[in-house]
Amino acid sequence: MRRIDWRLCFIADSEAAGGREILPLIVDAVEGGATLVQLRGKKWTSRKFLELGVQAVRFLRAEKIPLIINDRLDIALACEADGVHLGQDDLPIHYARKLLGKNRMIGISTSTLEEAEEAEKAGADYVGAGPVFGTLSKRDIGPLLGLEGLRAIREKVKIPILAIGGLTAGNVGEVISAGADGVAVISAIAAAANPKKAAAEIIESIKKHTGRGRGD
Amino acid sequence: MRRIDWRLCFIADSEAAGGREILPLIVDAVEGGATLVQLRGKKWTSRKFLELGVQAVRFLRAEKIPLIINDRLDIALACEADGVHLGQDDLPIHYARKLLGKNRMIGISTSTLEEAEEAEKAGADYVGAGPVFGTLSKRDIGPLLGLEGLRAIREKVKIPILAIGGLTAGNVGEVISAGADGVAVISAIAAAANPKKAAAEIIESIKKHTGRGRGD
Repeated sequence: MRRIDWRLCFIADSEAAGGREILPLIVDAVEGGATLVQLRGKKWTSRKFLELGVQAVRFLRAEKIPLIINDRLDIALACEADGVHLGQDDLPIHYARKLLGKNRMIGISTSTLEEAEEAEKAGADYVGAGPVFGTLSKRDIGPLLGLEGLRAIREKVKIPILAIGGLTAGNVGEVISAGADGVAVISAIAAAANPKKAAAEIIESIKKHTGRGRGD
Repeated sequence: MRRIDWRLCFIADSEAAGGREILPLIVDAVEGGATLVQLRGKKWTSRKFLELGVQAVRFLRAEKIPLIINDRLDIALACEADGVHLGQDDLPIHYARKLLGKNRMIGISTSTLEEAEEAEKAGADYVGAGPVFGTLSKRDIGPLLGLEGLRAIREKVKIPILAIGGLTAGNVGEVISAGADGVAVISAIAAAANPKKAAAEIIESIKKHTGRGRGD
């Protein structure tokens, strides 16, 4: 697998984007400094999802930014994305690996140390870990992982960790200090008055808290 | 591709099944005489869909009944189903063929002669054609294809045709006479007081109207 800059993953989510078009948001996020993009659309038809995936790949490949598809392995394969991100209700990782092969990344959403260790053991390339803080993007999210939970995962898990949940330019420093390799954000970029500026502020804040991390 | 008995496809749909469990419904439909099963669940999580697919394949393989997965190519590949059924809003067929290969079937939902001809030209293994009659399973279905429309498709299209939409034991004879190779039903089985008996009545009615068709 190629070397990935994990610092700032923009989750381009149909619902969190509200009325905004997804592709211009992705362009803004990347121009601001996002290092990774995940495309997520629970309510899109398969055809719409594929079309956006194809367009996103076209733009992101030129920018050398990886694209991760949420949940849908078929969409990821069809648009030749760089990987998939799977929740605990999505396909189990061993099925996913069989379909995707070794050259595409698989990330797993985890909300406990046990889930994170299990994901690593099963061969995940990275874990999403959260929610670290409260968030507006997801309702009924259950208990927070918090910085303590994030540190506990960092102590046990060697693969990259993307912290998620309630992250902003104001608090990303704390999760990087707690051991996250990067952060995944939705509304901090998608719902910002100026998404490009929001992404730039987050990546600047991350840079202040990283030494010579994976992304440097 | 192996020889398929197209006469009676039971579409095991999460929503049309109401409170009923999907797998017992599939068992009933097959024991009654269904020759093909399609599994469809727009609201299932991917993991749930996969689990049901795996269980359905296990039962159906022993019965030598093919399983078709609606929309989700990744689920079809993961559970090793016999094919996929794609709507006009699902993945375009050339993407699907690339992912599925030649050994798995691809069916396309069509509601006009143009769509049916296009599906055949693009390499579909069969078309669903309808709605022939009005139906309770789908709302806002647009104009009916009718028996006339079905005959028009039969005149131009060589691949198998599964008629769909408002079909019951009482009217399947008409669509077989109009040239359909078989019928696809949802609620006529899933919502019946006795699903097994309902399937048996439909297949009996089809047998009365088929000479030495593909399924004989």
